[in-house]
Amino acid sequence: MERLDQQMRFVAEIGKLKSVLRQTMLAVPGRRENSAEHSWHLAMMAVVLAEHAPSGTDIGRVIAMVLVHDLVEIDAGDLFLYADDAQQARQEEAERAAADRIFALLPPDQAASLRALWDEFEERRTREARFARGLDRLQPMLANLEAGGGTWREHGITADLVLAKVRLIEEGSESLGRYARDLVAQAVRAGLLAPAAPDWAG
Amino acid sequence: MERLDQQMRFVAEIGKLKSVLRQTMLAVPGRRENSAEHSWHLAMMAVVLAEHAPSGTDIGRVIAMVLVHDLVEIDAGDLFLYADDAQQARQEEAERAAADRIFALLPPDQAASLRALWDEFEERRTREARFARGLDRLQPMLANLEAGGGTWREHGITADLVLAKVRLIEEGSESLGRYARDLVAQAVRAGLLAPAAPDWAG
Repeated sequence: MERLDQQMRFVAEIGKLKSVLRQTMLAVPGRRENSAEHSWHLAMMAVVLAEHAPSGTDIGRVIAMVLVHDLVEIDAGDLFLYADDAQQARQEEAERAAADRIFALLPPDQAASLRALWDEFEERRTREARFARGLDRLQPMLANLEAGGGTWREHGITADLVLAKVRLIEEGSESLGRYARDLVAQAVRAGLLAPAAPDWAG
Repeated sequence: MERLDQQMRFVAEIGKLKSVLRQTMLAVPGRRENSAEHSWHLAMMAVVLAEHAPSGTDIGRVIAMVLVHDLVEIDAGDLFLYADDAQQARQEEAERAAADRIFALLPPDQAASLRALWDEFEERRTREARFARGLDRLQPMLANLEAGGGTWREHGITADLVLAKVRLIEEGSESLGRYARDLVAQAVRAGLLAPAAPDWAG
């Protein structure tokens, strides 16, 4: 029974992801999104948008990857996408320490396989990881559009900064990358996203 | 592009599951659980507890099933597990109407396959559905234990009522059924769950 007890301790521990708040604002209800419901939304996107992944992509693996990708935030918290390099580096270190602790709650074979999934997502070398990372970039863009600008307006993010992030979506899926570029143009036209800051403003 | 637009309308619509509140109380943070984060937790349980499913169970299908199983609550809301028969019947009707509306947002082929997944979960005939339903029963029990009694105390639920629900977990997985029975005994010993109401109290 020890093995099942370890699995259940992990199941209980990961429930804490429901209290990790992201930057993303939800239009309905008016509050920040938590990382557990975000992960569910990504898994549903993987199911529904599977045909936009490069042929041969193992969607089951993409789904498992997006389900576990944010578990490290239980210890490390969520970092805003546009944080500076020093903050990103500190975050990466905190996330690795969190992965060491959290996955080790599981029996060793499962700890290793879930950790490998998380590493794969982070390293972005396989087509599964690139597709999963693309979904993770696209979902907050959809949320910002729904929320009338959301974190873009809140933090004064401009279209050129968003387009730099869209590259990661394109690497995961050609058609979703195109869709994301169109979304940016649409958000600029609708006044939800400021166009690029002029050179003299930098 | 019409197909992708339909898919994206569905992706936006299902975000509403984040505002459907369940009865389940979360110990941390102290609030009711929403159906989106609940669905994520079930999907993670399917990943971690896969070895407790009967041999030959397609876990990918179980995961897809738990991801979509509560979407109908966007229209129909969540019903407490111990609601009476009349309430259950009204709920079933509302959920079927919700399934008709929500899945139809997708392109027809995907609408049919996700609807089939939802029907399979409801009908509980395949081992995948029985395992998924078992997880859906087990997760609130774990939450009640963590929350010091949770909805059991709140609604004066007794151990005999909980054990009647445990049968559904046993149908999905022998070892998880045994685990759930032990949990009930443990909750009674800890005073978190009242033992069966005496006959004269009925």
